[in-house]
Amino acid sequence: MNLPDIQPPQVDWASGAFADGPLLSKSTRLRDLAGIFADEPARQQLPGEQVIYDVEMLATSPAEGELYTGVTHLYPGRVGGEYFMTRGHFHARREQGEVYFGLRGNGLLLLQNEQGEARLEKVFTGSVHIIPGFTAHRLINTGGEVLSALAVWPGVAGHDYAALANGFALRVMVSSEGWEVHHD
Amino acid sequence: MNLPDIQPPQVDWASGAFADGPLLSKSTRLRDLAGIFADEPARQQLPGEQVIYDVEMLATSPAEGELYTGVTHLYPGRVGGEYFMTRGHFHARREQGEVYFGLRGNGLLLLQNEQGEARLEKVFTGSVHIIPGFTAHRLINTGGEVLSALAVWPGVAGHDYAALANGFALRVMVSSEGWEVHHD
Repeated sequence: MNLPDIQPPQVDWASGAFADGPLLSKSTRLRDLAGIFADEPARQQLPGEQVIYDVEMLATSPAEGELYTGVTHLYPGRVGGEYFMTRGHFHARREQGEVYFGLRGNGLLLLQNEQGEARLEKVFTGSVHIIPGFTAHRLINTGGEVLSALAVWPGVAGHDYAALANGFALRVMVSSEGWEVHHD
Repeated sequence: MNLPDIQPPQVDWASGAFADGPLLSKSTRLRDLAGIFADEPARQQLPGEQVIYDVEMLATSPAEGELYTGVTHLYPGRVGGEYFMTRGHFHARREQGEVYFGLRGNGLLLLQNEQGEARLEKVFTGSVHIIPGFTAHRLINTGGEVLSALAVWPGVAGHDYAALANGFALRVMVSSEGWEVHHD
């Protein structure tokens, strides 16, 4: 028994930070999100290098049946009257689901099926989101701090962004109540 | 937008307790664990109705690609010189993996492949365990409090207990150091 081998990776529940794992990281910046927000001129006036969200995931096997684990950190902010959000995607393997857990911050998870029907779930510390297969998903940060969510998804799921080329059926906009829904 | 619909289930990171979800619960008692511990006479002398572990899971779809979410609460205690543990299992669909997250308490995750090679990972608050496919898994509580672990696994995985009829290749026993490994 090789004792050093028994230390697994860790996640800090308060921040979503990983430690001791083989990590992959990706930053998505404003310049990567052309056409995603309703107010494209407003997006172009903001600095393109600004990071909107960071994803860190454990570099584990992508084989059939294996699960990936990662954390999305979505920063607070707005483009015009719209809250910062992730690009959102269907899985390439449409039947593959995902589970999200809210770790910190406050936001919304936007879910949309292949018939274009959208719904929202509140994301907060301890929230659990069972994302079924055949369902596109996007995080939206409606709060003033970082929104961090832990995700587990099948290694074979893949991403399909093209299927959402026309966007989701609803948008979450700033309002005097905090946020409100606009239907496209 | 039906606002009450947007409240998802929640998990309390400190205790692993679920709220607001459709839950399934199962208790496993000493009388359900005949032949699992090394000292079977010691097991028979303890009260059979004693709960060794509770599992709570969200009642969600078992379809191909969908993920289950649940928490195991493994209580502290010993049978003879052996720490309380779960029965342990392979998945019926052998290629299907699982992810565990330590929430509270201290213990070990025993992993064993189909060649009978076993290894241990420490389980503690924030520990992340990527259980590959083709790998049996068992939780062991080496601490003095409840060991609670959050798990995400594929709805199609299923359980195969029979493949481990001869048990795992190693046992975790009480020792003056806290615990030590015995090879069967």
